[in-house]
Amino acid sequence: MIYLDNSATTKPSESAVKAAILMMEEEFGNPSSRYTLGLSSERILNEARASVAASLHTNAKNIIFTSGGTESDNIAIIGGANIKAGKRIVTTAIEHDAVKNAFMHLEALGFEVVFVAPEEDGSVKAEKILAAVNDKTSLVSVMHVNNETGAILPIEKLAPMIKRKAPRALFHVDAVQSFGKIDLYPSRWGIDLMTVSSHKVHGPKGVGALYKSDKVTSLKPIVFGGGQEGNIRSGTENMVGIAGFGAAAAEINPDEHYERMAKLKKDFAEKLLALPDVYLNGGLINSSPYILNVSFKGIRSEIMLNALSEEGIYVSSGSACAKGAKGSSTLAAMNVPYPDNAIRFSFSKHTSFEELEETYQTIIKKLEILR
Amino acid sequence: MIYLDNSATTKPSESAVKAAILMMEEEFGNPSSRYTLGLSSERILNEARASVAASLHTNAKNIIFTSGGTESDNIAIIGGANIKAGKRIVTTAIEHDAVKNAFMHLEALGFEVVFVAPEEDGSVKAEKILAAVNDKTSLVSVMHVNNETGAILPIEKLAPMIKRKAPRALFHVDAVQSFGKIDLYPSRWGIDLMTVSSHKVHGPKGVGALYKSDKVTSLKPIVFGGGQEGNIRSGTENMVGIAGFGAAAAEINPDEHYERMAKLKKDFAEKLLALPDVYLNGGLINSSPYILNVSFKGIRSEIMLNALSEEGIYVSSGSACAKGAKGSSTLAAMNVPYPDNAIRFSFSKHTSFEELEETYQTIIKKLEILR
Repeated sequence: MIYLDNSATTKPSESAVKAAILMMEEEFGNPSSRYTLGLSSERILNEARASVAASLHTNAKNIIFTSGGTESDNIAIIGGANIKAGKRIVTTAIEHDAVKNAFMHLEALGFEVVFVAPEEDGSVKAEKILAAVNDKTSLVSVMHVNNETGAILPIEKLAPMIKRKAPRALFHVDAVQSFGKIDLYPSRWGIDLMTVSSHKVHGPKGVGALYKSDKVTSLKPIVFGGGQEGNIRSGTENMVGIAGFGAAAAEINPDEHYERMAKLKKDFAEKLLALPDVYLNGGLINSSPYILNVSFKGIRSEIMLNALSEEGIYVSSGSACAKGAKGSSTLAAMNVPYPDNAIRFSFSKHTSFEELEETYQTIIKKLEILR
Repeated sequence: MIYLDNSATTKPSESAVKAAILMMEEEFGNPSSRYTLGLSSERILNEARASVAASLHTNAKNIIFTSGGTESDNIAIIGGANIKAGKRIVTTAIEHDAVKNAFMHLEALGFEVVFVAPEEDGSVKAEKILAAVNDKTSLVSVMHVNNETGAILPIEKLAPMIKRKAPRALFHVDAVQSFGKIDLYPSRWGIDLMTVSSHKVHGPKGVGALYKSDKVTSLKPIVFGGGQEGNIRSGTENMVGIAGFGAAAAEINPDEHYERMAKLKKDFAEKLLALPDVYLNGGLINSSPYILNVSFKGIRSEIMLNALSEEGIYVSSGSACAKGAKGSSTLAAMNVPYPDNAIRFSFSKHTSFEELEETYQTIIKKLEILR
């Protein structure tokens, strides 16, 4: 198996699995319980929180555990937008469905929603986002790395620019695809809310986190109950997922892998793009080393996906995070020439040169058969 | 260890743990992915759904996986109430915080909320609930078994009565504490929505389900994204939790244990109540065999809890599902004489006569020291 769909999900690491198993076999107490077994579970909860916080260079008190990236995005957006503080909310036209559909929901509730269009390279210019922000803006949400093309968005420089123009606006960053791959400093960068997910960084599925700056005091919950997670996310904590996430977060070290991955992607991209009728979707500059999206003109995405799957090579025809077949709104917004022929290769720190070389050779063979 | 806090959480079963581990070590694919690894994960998702459905005597298409009981309650209530269809929503004064606080949230949004008071035995009369329902009612939510006292509420007979009085009202049942302990037939009983949780039935934490009748077409999501779970609960599925939940649900067989547990509880209750200054909170008739709540007059709950914890006996001073120390609103609503002295013993199918006998003997010793 050559697994090149790491933007859809990753294989949990050994230490993440071990931590998760411990919570089921031994440490099964409810962290809210006040006897030994519960207190021990609470201690592990605190350790996992500290670990995720450290991976974001922040403090444990700034980490809210959630059921995943989608819920973190929804809490930030639905819980952060405030029609009285400003009915305008701004995002980009290339966001994940979790952000896009949360915005659509708010639009139906009366918010004025702006989706800022991307450039040809798949990124979105800071100036264009900023132009959409006015003093009636209560929320801005911008993804860090696009899940389909790998385009990097200018979140670092956006934070102070947004605050200058709309001091009361909350700035949320969906960092699901950059977390673990690019070193993130939400606090230093002046970001208010940041979404990260466990299963994209070799932790279990079903758990994520929302970074919340100390300055944010207006965030409202969207689920109500026992008041866990600082009353922002009620419900008995998913200790299996949280412990696994904590272990996976402890292994995050973006700088250790960045250069090698950048080289790996560049080499793979150059070889593919040298083949006839292969088109790059997005750019190679200002792009994550972990995602490459190309179109094989004349071959529908699912045909190539299945052809590679037959050989044990797993890739994606777009985002795996949406049910059912539908076109990519990101590629459509970018006006790429062959969106129906797009294949996304997404890597992890475990991806090797040999795997990509074998994938390249297999693609050459498949192209001969399919064309 | 004698674990008598099974209403707070349970130890995952061997098969649940095994199923969860498989999803991390081998079947880590995203069920939305269209290659072999993803399809295999989707198959396991479908099997788990069928298993949970079977445990509720319903069909797989009626099961929505969620992140737990709290989220299921919130989806049913916030997603089910409809101010245009009827601004009145009715529940009881003894609900879990997930229901209570979802209702409080809706009250702040303009709904007219009624909390029906319990009787002395901790249950709530069907007639009283019905008296609160009028034709402007869009939602009624009633728990099946109270988490603190074990009182059983008359949900079976309520469904048709509510429908007669308010045909458009949705009827939701929080069945977290009865699931796995009392055989549930939501479809036959005419219930629209029913909440169940994995970690109360020897499955992992962080996953639950919402039963939705075919007749319910108006339920709205509260989290938006990729459209998973019939668009009611977006987000990559928590496959670790779901597979574990499916395995745990397959082991559910309430009738196999009911009689024995009823006998066990009766015997334990009789012995405790024969001691001086021990008071039953709630009734013994019309009560779950899995929960017993008594007050040891003059001894604060946390003192007794700690005294028993020292001996490896784990009990609760109330619901473990709420963060922080605060009084029980259920016991307050029931006007029990010594709410601050209450101890909840909650059992599982693994609880033995010997464990309860040892607990009884330990309590006698502790009472001598503490009084």
